[in-house]
Amino acid sequence: MNAPLRTGLAALALSLTFAPAWAQTSPDAGSASQGEPVPPPWFEAPLVGTGGEGHTFPGAVAPFGMIQLSPDTDTGCKIRECYAHAAGYRYEDPTIQGFSLTHFSGAGHSDLGDFLMMPVAGDTVPLEPGDPKQPGSGYRSRFSHSREMARPGLYSVVLDDSGIGARLTAGTRVGVQQYVFPKGKAAHLVLDLRSSLYNYPGKTLWSSIRIRADGTITGSRETRGWAPARKLFFAIRPSAPLTGHAFLNKEEKVEYKGFQGPSRGADDAAQLAGRALVAQLDFGMLDQPLEVKVAISSVDEDGAIANLDSEPGGFREISNKTTADWDKALGAIPVQGSPAMVKTFYAALYHTMIAPSVFSDADGRWRGPDDQVHAAKGFTFHSTFSLWDTFRAEHPLLLLTQGEQKNADFVNSLIASQQVSPFGILPVWQFHGRETWTMIGYHAVPVIADAYLKGIKGFDPNAALDAMVKSATYGPYGGLDQHMKLGYVPIDKEPEAASKTVEYAYDDWTIARMASAMGKADIAATFEKRAGNWRNSFDAKTGFLRARKSDGSYRTPFDPTAINYGSDYTEGNAWQYSWFVPQDQAGMFKLLGSDAAVVKKLDAMFDFDNSKIDYSHAEDIAGLIGQYIHGNEPSHHVAYLYSYAGQPWRTQERLKQIVESQYKPTPDGLSGNDDLGQMSAWLVFTALGFYPVAPGSNQYVIGRPFLDRAALNLPNGKRFTVVAEGLSDANKYVGKVTLNGKPLARGYLTHDEIVAGGELKFTMSATPNKSWATGKAARPYSMSTATR
Amino acid sequence: MNAPLRTGLAALALSLTFAPAWAQTSPDAGSASQGEPVPPPWFEAPLVGTGGEGHTFPGAVAPFGMIQLSPDTDTGCKIRECYAHAAGYRYEDPTIQGFSLTHFSGAGHSDLGDFLMMPVAGDTVPLEPGDPKQPGSGYRSRFSHSREMARPGLYSVVLDDSGIGARLTAGTRVGVQQYVFPKGKAAHLVLDLRSSLYNYPGKTLWSSIRIRADGTITGSRETRGWAPARKLFFAIRPSAPLTGHAFLNKEEKVEYKGFQGPSRGADDAAQLAGRALVAQLDFGMLDQPLEVKVAISSVDEDGAIANLDSEPGGFREISNKTTADWDKALGAIPVQGSPAMVKTFYAALYHTMIAPSVFSDADGRWRGPDDQVHAAKGFTFHSTFSLWDTFRAEHPLLLLTQGEQKNADFVNSLIASQQVSPFGILPVWQFHGRETWTMIGYHAVPVIADAYLKGIKGFDPNAALDAMVKSATYGPYGGLDQHMKLGYVPIDKEPEAASKTVEYAYDDWTIARMASAMGKADIAATFEKRAGNWRNSFDAKTGFLRARKSDGSYRTPFDPTAINYGSDYTEGNAWQYSWFVPQDQAGMFKLLGSDAAVVKKLDAMFDFDNSKIDYSHAEDIAGLIGQYIHGNEPSHHVAYLYSYAGQPWRTQERLKQIVESQYKPTPDGLSGNDDLGQMSAWLVFTALGFYPVAPGSNQYVIGRPFLDRAALNLPNGKRFTVVAEGLSDANKYVGKVTLNGKPLARGYLTHDEIVAGGELKFTMSATPNKSWATGKAARPYSMSTATR
Repeated sequence: MNAPLRTGLAALALSLTFAPAWAQTSPDAGSASQGEPVPPPWFEAPLVGTGGEGHTFPGAVAPFGMIQLSPDTDTGCKIRECYAHAAGYRYEDPTIQGFSLTHFSGAGHSDLGDFLMMPVAGDTVPLEPGDPKQPGSGYRSRFSHSREMARPGLYSVVLDDSGIGARLTAGTRVGVQQYVFPKGKAAHLVLDLRSSLYNYPGKTLWSSIRIRADGTITGSRETRGWAPARKLFFAIRPSAPLTGHAFLNKEEKVEYKGFQGPSRGADDAAQLAGRALVAQLDFGMLDQPLEVKVAISSVDEDGAIANLDSEPGGFREISNKTTADWDKALGAIPVQGSPAMVKTFYAALYHTMIAPSVFSDADGRWRGPDDQVHAAKGFTFHSTFSLWDTFRAEHPLLLLTQGEQKNADFVNSLIASQQVSPFGILPVWQFHGRETWTMIGYHAVPVIADAYLKGIKGFDPNAALDAMVKSATYGPYGGLDQHMKLGYVPIDKEPEAASKTVEYAYDDWTIARMASAMGKADIAATFEKRAGNWRNSFDAKTGFLRARKSDGSYRTPFDPTAINYGSDYTEGNAWQYSWFVPQDQAGMFKLLGSDAAVVKKLDAMFDFDNSKIDYSHAEDIAGLIGQYIHGNEPSHHVAYLYSYAGQPWRTQERLKQIVESQYKPTPDGLSGNDDLGQMSAWLVFTALGFYPVAPGSNQYVIGRPFLDRAALNLPNGKRFTVVAEGLSDANKYVGKVTLNGKPLARGYLTHDEIVAGGELKFTMSATPNKSWATGKAARPYSMSTATR
Repeated sequence: MNAPLRTGLAALALSLTFAPAWAQTSPDAGSASQGEPVPPPWFEAPLVGTGGEGHTFPGAVAPFGMIQLSPDTDTGCKIRECYAHAAGYRYEDPTIQGFSLTHFSGAGHSDLGDFLMMPVAGDTVPLEPGDPKQPGSGYRSRFSHSREMARPGLYSVVLDDSGIGARLTAGTRVGVQQYVFPKGKAAHLVLDLRSSLYNYPGKTLWSSIRIRADGTITGSRETRGWAPARKLFFAIRPSAPLTGHAFLNKEEKVEYKGFQGPSRGADDAAQLAGRALVAQLDFGMLDQPLEVKVAISSVDEDGAIANLDSEPGGFREISNKTTADWDKALGAIPVQGSPAMVKTFYAALYHTMIAPSVFSDADGRWRGPDDQVHAAKGFTFHSTFSLWDTFRAEHPLLLLTQGEQKNADFVNSLIASQQVSPFGILPVWQFHGRETWTMIGYHAVPVIADAYLKGIKGFDPNAALDAMVKSATYGPYGGLDQHMKLGYVPIDKEPEAASKTVEYAYDDWTIARMASAMGKADIAATFEKRAGNWRNSFDAKTGFLRARKSDGSYRTPFDPTAINYGSDYTEGNAWQYSWFVPQDQAGMFKLLGSDAAVVKKLDAMFDFDNSKIDYSHAEDIAGLIGQYIHGNEPSHHVAYLYSYAGQPWRTQERLKQIVESQYKPTPDGLSGNDDLGQMSAWLVFTALGFYPVAPGSNQYVIGRPFLDRAALNLPNGKRFTVVAEGLSDANKYVGKVTLNGKPLARGYLTHDEIVAGGELKFTMSATPNKSWATGKAARPYSMSTATR
């Protein structure tokens, strides 16, 4: 299937790029003609997750690109109401407010939406977005999904109120908008520097705009949002010359504005700076589509211009390259299976290649967590690290799908951030170079350790280990000082103490693993010891992880179903967090008693009756299967734990239950925030039949495949093929497994086995094989020497 | 007198540097001992103008230095009340709030006061400045002038409430504070990032602070003040290690602050960012004085650190160098005269060497009017250009006192600013690289033309002329589009039109002069024509410059004494502005009629009865002698105009009247804002006996000297000596003049005559010499070909 599909794709990319894309999905354009190429299975991937809880965006982005050029349907909301609009766009919304350059893919919190632009046709140019309920009350426009198209790297829509056709594409550091204005109507572009995602009064600290001599429009904005005082610069180059413009400052009640610069009219000048700017750019009557090429920079306006110039060409050239890049990236794993599963798989795979995003300028400069400009030497700085999410499966997946250089870029970016961090620690949740202090742990550590242990070169292991140790020993962060003293984080000193204790223990174990591999026995011993600290917060009596106070007692009252912000756990409760000992599941299972006791408890979690519990108040709690919550990350490895307890067929059952209830190839197809690829990476791994329960172990726990056939064309040139013979709805169990034609008795793969290339073949069965991979030696095992 | 004086000064500088300076002025220290060196005549120069209307600051600055480290007595005022505190310090105030790093010298408007620090002794550390009326209510302290000392480059004071002795010094890009804490009291430093001059709610857009691994404290602040969104970074390095610290954010009612970083207590962290930060730095018990070395940068924190490192040494080394630099700079013009006049002269000379200030970092980088970072190649970027003031006498004086390189630096800085200006024009009123759009005209033009015509090399004349022409033809600025169309600025389209018309005409004339000297006849002809535009706004019928409307009529009603913002004139009225035709005084006089008519009108101005006029509402109107207003610039050349009318003895009389009523060597000794040296430069020239009425003409109009003897040791190694034989209160007239021993019949000098070195000898007389320099050929003349 591989070759013909990809040839077809190239043809499709061309047709999409050279013809008005929206016409293809417009009812007026008639049905698809006979000769039209078949769309690739990732054709509508960007729309998956744009409704429901996914928080993905439908717009154009190159793989790991700096620009995410995408429509925003509503940005005018208050903080809590904004949650649903974290990516700017909601599939359910009836209007588009404009197109902005930066978006998160699936974040639970949000920000960005920088530099919103909206084309306007005709003589009247509204400079306020207007009310979605009152068409024509502002520059926003109604739109219809029937005249909307999204494929990786390309988005198009018809703005119904103005009749303007809009197409978006993006390169690595540029974006291009293409607007077709109705004949006989003057073309305008509104640039609203007030607009932002998660907007609220006072968010914009300062902004500026000006027109350069060559017609390039540049400017800046500094916002206080999720990250403090984030600076971003832009450069905008339209394909047609300006015939007029107006810059306006809408800020009211300013005690003192300073003297005013030269102006022709109110606030209209070659440059304007202020806190509430909006710009009207006029182009007159055009007989060509207007193309608006854009770039951003964290460094300065010149950086944005240089980025703009770094990728030559207009809409056609940029969209050709980016769609080809996507086709290559996604086509690297050709699969066969049910149409829905194939679409689900590629939608997921697409969403694993958006973040971390390129962030350094074309010349290597980037603004760091210290708000200072640095130069990346020998690597491309990436940002947008949602590490609490992505250390689990997203980064492990990127180690298989991306080359040495990209993965080294990630690690080097983390190290570089640590080296200039005012706190001297690795990123926690970083975007646009700034630290947001979101979530817990120091999960850059397992990302780096996993990369090192899986053989990624191209970074300095000593600098990396130094950064890891510093992050794990920085007392003021998240109760670490207490943790180092007591062996656990005490809940009377630090919130979410139970979760922190177990996550630190896992992170520490990955330091020990890497230090050990580097021959640094002292560091390895120190952190191997710390890796056992999960025991200090595990209450064997109740069988749950629990928060302890400084005096050693467990906090009471204790309700394992309680989920609250500021509680003992992070976005979860005792049910989810008690299983988080990836480095020593066997040790944890011993505390629970027999394998049977473990399975019973796992079943109790999945089969829990939630009818008496109300979680509507809790953010990020979605996708519930009993107390298993697939919509958030702490549960992600739990279905695979049956295999650790010697009952892999129970894992197989649960995976079917999860995949079928939590993923659909539709806008509302994600049960929880995609979290910068983690939800999607879980699906990609699970669909392939294995999952990295403990990054740092180099093990992948075998689950069961959901595709008939899949081939990982690895960056090293090898191919690892997964075949699922007899896969069907009825044949939901793994009957037997062979690796390269030989029976595989154990329930896990090693990283070496995958990267060597080969074939993993499942024979599916309608009945469970209760003897395969059940013995102690055949189970995925814990790497912690304390237990083994 | 030259040599012995300067030797004595060197000794004094040493004694001041090595002994606690405040002890010398403390009553407890007893009277001056026998062997103590005599203070130089500029000993207390920095205090002159710190009361009254001068708006100077008493603190430490190196010649043209980037840092102006000076006490602020009150920064908490509202805009209008702030006027009196434009330099932070008022001699009349009873308390010092703290010491900040940046100050204007004599500005009418204000800003700066960046990074206020205050030492605190003992266990309680207040973090609010407190009420001046309630001692102990905050960190501010009472102080006494009896225990205060200021000399160029050095300031010391005892903070009476805490008993801390404070000394300040500054290098080119560093400042050093030295604090002696009372024995047995713990040492602290408060850094209040909320404090600023001309402060008001919302001025601070953002700020940050952090501690680097080596103990250096760095941070930033972005303020919206006189200049929009000015960014400044700091680096602070204390001589003792921190024993503790607290960073606090005092901002209230923030809708959304983002997540909080790692902290030990409320807001206390290794880094804090926000809009209302205050930091407490603890040093414990010290047995040495605490030295706090500081630097700033417009580029970034690393730039501030590099600046800090660019000048090695502590208080002793930096103060030794800077006081020696000042002694050299001021001692280059040794003078003899009455003690008061000598002190007045040096106080003035000192104040002419503060701005324009070095602004580029040690590595040459600077942030420009476009808010972008640029690199100065081959020159040092200077900023703080108060050009409407300083084009008159301050820049012409610097052409005589400073070397080729410094003057080329000024010109290159102006050109560099134009080249990156979003408007493509030269600075109007620029500080810290940012344009403030204060005052009128494009007076960088005469500064550059004067430098070129006086032979300053080291800049590109073509780039300069291009910048000048662009500035003079930028339509949106100050009614220039109308001016170019009508030949005058119409008052119905643009405020202060009359002033703008005549100032543009003068500026245009200097373009013509420079273009002509460069052989560019076309440009010269164009601007020579424009130089005559003053005629289009001069009403020969009333004998006054008047504002005209677009239809050609003069605006009525017309009252030549009316002074209002938004009126026909800029900070003045028809009395002052009608005389502003430096390029063609003879042409203007023709319109008034005979010489006698001119003199009569000049007398009418000086002898005007103001008893029926209330100017209390008008800012910057101070120092009135009738309708001659010495406290503001438009009048500055007017006393010299009698000489143009053939009555130099009347100029001599008026100069005595002005000098005696407008200048004293005391804190309240300036009748108006020093305006970055212009008020002082007027005095320096006038005391020497000549004045540059028309920069660009290479003429200096001879007035009368106020010193017995003065020697300009010129940068080219030549010496130009001025001798006033028989000078006394009675001998107020010039009897005769010789140049290099030969009688000088004319009433002006040429620039070539001065820079060639030589001796200008006045023989003073009790009676006017009514035949000297009265004939047409002997008068200072107009250079405009239109008239000549």
